Amino acid sequence: MAQGLRREEIEMSEQVPGTETPRARRRSGGGRAARIAQRSEGPKEAAVRAGLVGGAYRPLTDHDIQRIHERALDVLENIGMGDAFPAFRELALAKGCWMNEHDRLCFPRALIEDIVAGAGRDFTLHGRDPKHDLHISESRTHFGTAGMAVRVLDVESRKFRSSTLNDLYDFARLVDQLDNIHWFSRTVVATEIEDLHEFDMSVAFACAAGTQKHIFSGFNLPEHVKQGVAMFDAILGGEGRFRERPFCSVNTCSIVPPLRYGEDNGAVSMECARLGMPVNMVIAAQAGATSPAALAGTLVQTVAETLAGLALVNLTVPGHPMIFSNWPFVSDLRTGAFSGGGGEEAVLNAASAQLTNFYDLPSGVAAGMSDSKFPDNQAGYEKGITTVLAGMAGANMVFESAGMLASLIGCSFEALVIDNDMLGSVQRAVRGIEVSDETLSYEVLEEVCCGGPGHFLGQPQTLSIMESEYLYPELGDRSTTGEWEENGSQLIHERAVGKVRELMSSHYPEYIDRKVAEELRRRYPIKLTAEAMTPGSGRW
Amino acid sequence: MAQGLRREEIEMSEQVPGTETPRARRRSGGGRAARIAQRSEGPKEAAVRAGLVGGAYRPLTDHDIQRIHERALDVLENIGMGDAFPAFRELALAKGCWMNEHDRLCFPRALIEDIVAGAGRDFTLHGRDPKHDLHISESRTHFGTAGMAVRVLDVESRKFRSSTLNDLYDFARLVDQLDNIHWFSRTVVATEIEDLHEFDMSVAFACAAGTQKHIFSGFNLPEHVKQGVAMFDAILGGEGRFRERPFCSVNTCSIVPPLRYGEDNGAVSMECARLGMPVNMVIAAQAGATSPAALAGTLVQTVAETLAGLALVNLTVPGHPMIFSNWPFVSDLRTGAFSGGGGEEAVLNAASAQLTNFYDLPSGVAAGMSDSKFPDNQAGYEKGITTVLAGMAGANMVFESAGMLASLIGCSFEALVIDNDMLGSVQRAVRGIEVSDETLSYEVLEEVCCGGPGHFLGQPQTLSIMESEYLYPELGDRSTTGEWEENGSQLIHERAVGKVRELMSSHYPEYIDRKVAEELRRRYPIKLTAEAMTPGSGRW
Repeated sequence: MAQGLRREEIEMSEQVPGTETPRARRRSGGGRAARIAQRSEGPKEAAVRAGLVGGAYRPLTDHDIQRIHERALDVLENIGMGDAFPAFRELALAKGCWMNEHDRLCFPRALIEDIVAGAGRDFTLHGRDPKHDLHISESRTHFGTAGMAVRVLDVESRKFRSSTLNDLYDFARLVDQLDNIHWFSRTVVATEIEDLHEFDMSVAFACAAGTQKHIFSGFNLPEHVKQGVAMFDAILGGEGRFRERPFCSVNTCSIVPPLRYGEDNGAVSMECARLGMPVNMVIAAQAGATSPAALAGTLVQTVAETLAGLALVNLTVPGHPMIFSNWPFVSDLRTGAFSGGGGEEAVLNAASAQLTNFYDLPSGVAAGMSDSKFPDNQAGYEKGITTVLAGMAGANMVFESAGMLASLIGCSFEALVIDNDMLGSVQRAVRGIEVSDETLSYEVLEEVCCGGPGHFLGQPQTLSIMESEYLYPELGDRSTTGEWEENGSQLIHERAVGKVRELMSSHYPEYIDRKVAEELRRRYPIKLTAEAMTPGSGRW
Repeated sequence: MAQGLRREEIEMSEQVPGTETPRARRRSGGGRAARIAQRSEGPKEAAVRAGLVGGAYRPLTDHDIQRIHERALDVLENIGMGDAFPAFRELALAKGCWMNEHDRLCFPRALIEDIVAGAGRDFTLHGRDPKHDLHISESRTHFGTAGMAVRVLDVESRKFRSSTLNDLYDFARLVDQLDNIHWFSRTVVATEIEDLHEFDMSVAFACAAGTQKHIFSGFNLPEHVKQGVAMFDAILGGEGRFRERPFCSVNTCSIVPPLRYGEDNGAVSMECARLGMPVNMVIAAQAGATSPAALAGTLVQTVAETLAGLALVNLTVPGHPMIFSNWPFVSDLRTGAFSGGGGEEAVLNAASAQLTNFYDLPSGVAAGMSDSKFPDNQAGYEKGITTVLAGMAGANMVFESAGMLASLIGCSFEALVIDNDMLGSVQRAVRGIEVSDETLSYEVLEEVCCGGPGHFLGQPQTLSIMESEYLYPELGDRSTTGEWEENGSQLIHERAVGKVRELMSSHYPEYIDRKVAEELRRRYPIKLTAEAMTPGSGRW
């Protein structure tokens, strides 16, 4: 199986995302003059952007990876997958799978290797606006939300309340305005909606209404997928338009750990493949509870499970775009409860990214899932550690990276805005250090030290790269202790309250044409009202 | 020049630090049985400990490293070092150095290479108690304090006040009780003391009185070093004892960036080398101000500067223990002020560790230097990102990793206690994932899935490794949202207040015999009173 290119072999991208030559050699002498020219003539380059190349952190050795891979294939071949539902089982048996004595579906190694070889890779996840397109390849990193929290934190009263459909729409509107968050996947559940049909259609509508970034929604039943696609077609202006620009992926948990298929979600994945909706195959085994307590064992199981999900999609539609979202979770073994913020979680998801990149498949991981209930210092370090390691490991898509609290039970608008700053720092770190004749700065050093001013403050180099090399936080504070005290000794979550209010009270975009929205409300049980989508709705 | 062993070649240490076979191959099949036996028979292994092997994160390619190294040698050979003071210049000229036309001391490449080859490496930094010994070699990681802040934060009033000698002693006592902080280097300045002699003797005494971990102190003049050693001898019970167990290193800034020597600190380094006190050669150039704004250029300069410091020590006493503390700092270029918390700072110090490990020298870096004034969410993510990347890069010693705020201007007891938890997570992540037949868990998976219980909660594997594989935070909160609200919705810094009070009100260790302390107060101008070293002093 081909190993993905090592980071050293990939260009440290200075290209605008979307330029289609990512496999060019990094930092080669040849392109330098062109880059310098681009720098001095072209528009100012930002210090961070979507698609920066990760992979400098490799928690597993090549030998470790090989052993985990081999064991995962052993699992699929011998232990197999339970609860293989008929619609998929037929496809699988026809390709040479068999049922073992425990009535589990077993996959021959060669079939899995063929599926990996033929799977979708190097594809684009479209935004409604092409400027938000995400080019998923190699170890290019992107950061976005996820979560499906059921509670929203009120920072000022320090209380949680149940999340609603309006919250979901508001979170989408907020993400739409935050540059370091590259897509919107449902942060919260519309807990007030019980009916699955109402739920699915309302959620998909709310996400599409709030942002032009790529969205991830979910569908409980295959027939809802069909209606969702028809709705997206209408939003885009006509039948078949969604297949041309599929701006929504589906989150699906088609596997029930340990090592079983889930029929409803499995059928949804198959239907999405048929209808051209990219699939985010989320595997959420939890070490010590639904997967082995030994971290390596959890990876064996979850790699096998994600490969089983890959088989599900690819035996339905070969090569269909699928994110290989192996999100190994961790238990606090004192209670058995999920814990999202520890060092074990950080290293597991980084290893997951590395394993998926070994298959050269689109890697999705989970990071930023603090156990703290509040955007406090604990949330900060838990999120910082987990997200930066996921990025450094070269995860193509870091889910859960903003807004989440309370081990995914809660979400916070203020945390989301703070995390946008954090993700800027993470992305700046992932970008790394460019080494070239120019940046090595020998001539600058000579000029400054040998009869020069003895400092670099006014140097042309300093002035020319202060925006392109250095990132400045928006909410993050760099004032002096005196200034800070004079300004009321505010903590960052206190500053975030005002920032959220500012962003939320003004940004009510009309991303769905008003008449189309009315028509969609007539056709589908959409619970997001026109009133909720206008300023003065009373929420902000 | 020999490149340090890659992480893959180093055993993922399960040894007690101090076992002298670190170069054995990692995770080899041969040692497994022995390890299993050790696990089941020996004392319970902790999830984290000093000396875990880093190096899985390599921000620079081998080619990058080579280019920075070559340019650093070019700088030393051609641009040279300014202000070479007579006592050292004589030594250097005798070894083949020369003065160039700008009156700068230039080093032939071969001399620098010889100095690196003969420099001290693989040594022990002693604690007063041997259980705190730090074995500095390869990419084994350790975390500790530093800072020299001039202000202390009162978390409850959100005000800073000037730091005092009593604060310094209290910080030492606090670090003494925190397992994930491996040494104590002066967190704060005794700002009330103006006289340099009083200052140096009082500071050294206060550090030694507060902790049995390895300490880093400082001396403003060479004659103070001599008195410091005599004081340490007395503490240890007789002349010559300190040279046998040098439990204190000196922090020295013998280089003034860009590329100049500082005479006073330089003379202190030379005196420490003669008297057997390990030298922490701290290089604190600041990108965009005292070093090039281009990050690679800053590394060229700071590597050259740290090598110039290495020459200073090694031409005085060849092979003398010296930490190669290349701490590249960053400016916020909007103001020119130091900024310690950004992604640029994170990646620069990680790269510094990698460069020093390339020389197979003891690497010291700086991380954890948040720009926030308070242990809030910003401080959390800035500290988390910077410290975990330093550890992953394999820094032997991560300084500034606990307690610091306000870009090193402020320090906080509460932050220190919180950061101890954070460093636990960092260390757990650095420890990584052990891959062995046992941890791959194939048999466990088979048992659970094929007719077994379908979950892993009660599995023998789960129970046997729940303490050795998983780390549980002390202050970090993992309760449910309901429990959290019931307990008063506390943020971690609010819980830290009580924890600090508990730790500080009880722990007044007699690490310096009372009579010896009295005698030392008669001999030297030590301002830390006996009263300040006893419970009920009114501070806690």
